[in-house]
Amino acid sequence: MSQLDEFKAYYGRVEDLKQSLNLLSWDQHVYMPQGAAETRAQQLSTLSSLIHEYTTSQQMKDLLAQLARQHYAEDSDEGRLLARAQRSVDQASKLPAEFVETLSRQRSKTAHVWLKARAENNFKLFEKELAKIYDLVRQQADYLGYETHPYDALHDQYEMGSTVAALKPMFAELREETVELLKALGTAEQIDDALMHKAYDTEKQRQVSEEVARRIGFDFEHGRLDPTVHPFAQDISKYDVRITTKYVENWFASSLFGTMHEAGHGMYEQGIADAYHRGPLGAAVSLGVHESQSRLYENLVGRSYAFWQGYYPRLQAHFPAQLSDTSLDDFYRAINKVEPSLIRIEADEVTYNLHILIRFELELVLLEGSLKVAELPEAWNEKYEAYLGITPPSDALGCLQDVHWSEALVGYFPTYTLGNLMSVQLFEAAKRAHPGIEADMVQGDFTKLLSWLRDTIHQHGSKYTPAELVQKATGQALTAKPYISYLNSKFRALYGLS
Amino acid sequence: MSQLDEFKAYYGRVEDLKQSLNLLSWDQHVYMPQGAAETRAQQLSTLSSLIHEYTTSQQMKDLLAQLARQHYAEDSDEGRLLARAQRSVDQASKLPAEFVETLSRQRSKTAHVWLKARAENNFKLFEKELAKIYDLVRQQADYLGYETHPYDALHDQYEMGSTVAALKPMFAELREETVELLKALGTAEQIDDALMHKAYDTEKQRQVSEEVARRIGFDFEHGRLDPTVHPFAQDISKYDVRITTKYVENWFASSLFGTMHEAGHGMYEQGIADAYHRGPLGAAVSLGVHESQSRLYENLVGRSYAFWQGYYPRLQAHFPAQLSDTSLDDFYRAINKVEPSLIRIEADEVTYNLHILIRFELELVLLEGSLKVAELPEAWNEKYEAYLGITPPSDALGCLQDVHWSEALVGYFPTYTLGNLMSVQLFEAAKRAHPGIEADMVQGDFTKLLSWLRDTIHQHGSKYTPAELVQKATGQALTAKPYISYLNSKFRALYGLS
Repeated sequence: MSQLDEFKAYYGRVEDLKQSLNLLSWDQHVYMPQGAAETRAQQLSTLSSLIHEYTTSQQMKDLLAQLARQHYAEDSDEGRLLARAQRSVDQASKLPAEFVETLSRQRSKTAHVWLKARAENNFKLFEKELAKIYDLVRQQADYLGYETHPYDALHDQYEMGSTVAALKPMFAELREETVELLKALGTAEQIDDALMHKAYDTEKQRQVSEEVARRIGFDFEHGRLDPTVHPFAQDISKYDVRITTKYVENWFASSLFGTMHEAGHGMYEQGIADAYHRGPLGAAVSLGVHESQSRLYENLVGRSYAFWQGYYPRLQAHFPAQLSDTSLDDFYRAINKVEPSLIRIEADEVTYNLHILIRFELELVLLEGSLKVAELPEAWNEKYEAYLGITPPSDALGCLQDVHWSEALVGYFPTYTLGNLMSVQLFEAAKRAHPGIEADMVQGDFTKLLSWLRDTIHQHGSKYTPAELVQKATGQALTAKPYISYLNSKFRALYGLS
Repeated sequence: MSQLDEFKAYYGRVEDLKQSLNLLSWDQHVYMPQGAAETRAQQLSTLSSLIHEYTTSQQMKDLLAQLARQHYAEDSDEGRLLARAQRSVDQASKLPAEFVETLSRQRSKTAHVWLKARAENNFKLFEKELAKIYDLVRQQADYLGYETHPYDALHDQYEMGSTVAALKPMFAELREETVELLKALGTAEQIDDALMHKAYDTEKQRQVSEEVARRIGFDFEHGRLDPTVHPFAQDISKYDVRITTKYVENWFASSLFGTMHEAGHGMYEQGIADAYHRGPLGAAVSLGVHESQSRLYENLVGRSYAFWQGYYPRLQAHFPAQLSDTSLDDFYRAINKVEPSLIRIEADEVTYNLHILIRFELELVLLEGSLKVAELPEAWNEKYEAYLGITPPSDALGCLQDVHWSEALVGYFPTYTLGNLMSVQLFEAAKRAHPGIEADMVQGDFTKLLSWLRDTIHQHGSKYTPAELVQKATGQALTAKPYISYLNSKFRALYGLS
């Protein structure tokens, strides 16, 4: 066996453990009986620690050191594969076991307190624990190391190569333009989306979700769609991708767009090159790129006029009582209603990023220490008033709404907006490469779009950084401009503005 | 940490891996997408080999050796726990890795060939591979070691302490009495069970299955019921027990009795003592004891008059069109129809054991070499004619029907009949302890029965051998007599014989 094959065999076994962990995690959120929570936590903990043990083992380090002497070209699959493996080993090795243990305990505790604080609308309860979390992530950043800003160390875990220095100007531009657009839309006649709140039978919703996921290209031979309370996508492996959605009788948008969103995530995993399976390149490269795929299918496809030109008659046939009197145009307007609201996960395309930018700006100053945790509610509410024109009536509907910080996921939020920005820049490039993509959507044919995404994004797994992927796929670096221009042209037209 | 705690922590981690493997296996048979078969096999293989590695590691052996010097009393939990752990380590260590590999490859190959041979009704195709399997299990018996008969070494893997010498006379007595009873029943007026073959809506069957499982005591807080093609019970841990059943529109018995059967298996796992969780005593002790629990709930409860006195009105309410004209007595007779048939898994209570005894007698002579594999079909058909009075028209409906031998599971079949024998002996003892058990069943109250089984069987996990359990629970060693007497009294009455 060559040294490379020996390395691959070793790494593959660790991947098998990760895949097993993935199944334990999927099952926990979908089918696990309630009384199994404690024993499941134990199984997850044992597998996690075994994965950490094998990832940072002397054998792994020796194999990588031997292979480093082979001098594979930096840009070859082998070169990239070894670099990615080295990155995992380094990241896993940088955090002392004792610190990982402390962080893990504090996360469990904070998540618990957060649930209570949110339920009781009591920020005071949460304050002390959140302060401890920020102390710990500051230490984490020090362990991981950074050149310019501690935030970079944290954010890089989710978005390789992305930095505060690059995010700040891009996000500032996006914020200004979005706030301006939102003000303009506020002056126009508002959209009535009452038709989305009629009663839609959930079993029929399920059939529609499956039909739509299949239509846009999700592969059910290598995947499943199940109901859940908090929708997510989880790959067990690229050959076994599980997506979930939530069926709410009088809020049809939840399953309809949720399914397209998760199918977008799922198709990314399904599209990673077979050759990378069980290897260091066989994973999606970043949360931002992942979100670009889900948002592309949710919004650029799912909330487009072209998609519904093709699919609306079928949807009407599924729900004649609810939709036979509603025109395509009225349906299209209803699913694209813009309205500033308090809750991130319910936000429309225009306002969504403002929710993210607020969180990004706040976690930055919390990490720097220039904002005290005690001052968070006031700072949060001020920003909601300034950017969205609304003030949360309670912290439960304000700074207590997300689970992320209680789980020490600082540096994670920006990936949502990065995904949005990428989704438009990629979709524009896809249309340049295949001008027929929108006409095809009307016909119910999504193959050119998927095949372009497979070629430019999916197949590469973790071979390229997010920045490299965007540059190669679109011919330019990531910018907010295509997204800003898309929002303006779509929503000004929808609201009958210039 | 004490040495015992250190051992428990180590062993607990291995158990977590086994539990993860259990979930991978359950999912494979219930929800895994088809295209994931190959990657799932790889995950299972990696986890199996890790479990083997940790079970036979020097660390495990050292921990056991240290603890052996503590001289825990043989009958204490600690003494038993260490003995069971030592048994697992010994068994796992006795088979050379190369042999395990060869056997595993031959099993995969034979299972594949078996499917083809059965589909094409071509025993010749299967013959050579089955001969290789028998060569390998003979070697396996030698590796495992035995005192009297190589069959004991194989059978002991599934039924600790059970031997050919003990099985032979017990099974001979059972065979003679059953054949005689069957002949007698053949002279009586036969039962018409056409009502079981009406169309029963499968969604309503599902509701009934869940209701019945809950009624008899299956704990859905720590378990699930899902649909599948080949029903089974699989514990992930005692806190997470998954049972499955098959809904066939015009064969209601499949889900009705199948669910009670699997719920019986499931309640055994759910009842193991909390203190044994993640330890060497935390598993069901044998397949025979397992089967005693499933058959007790399927037959002694599920096919009893008392159960249906209580539940039949509810069943009629679920299926008024199918059952409102059928009396309780006619229903009771229909679900207890006796008829010699070709297929083991479709057999009634009287004939079921004859199918098992035929297999036991044949695998014994195949292992001894006194019957050649080439002679199997003829020997099989002769025994079916002799014991059941019917001759299989094809090998597909004869000696090719079971998967067991192709998977090298020789010594496994007798556990089905051991389970049947135990089920009656235990049920009689339960009724002696709580004479109200049958009256309670009429009222829909199954708590006394379950609590007696919890006390005498379930909680003990692997602490006692099957023989010890039966002796302690019933006050005598296992014999075929209670079963023979149960069959005679139940079925002679049902068929209007003396």
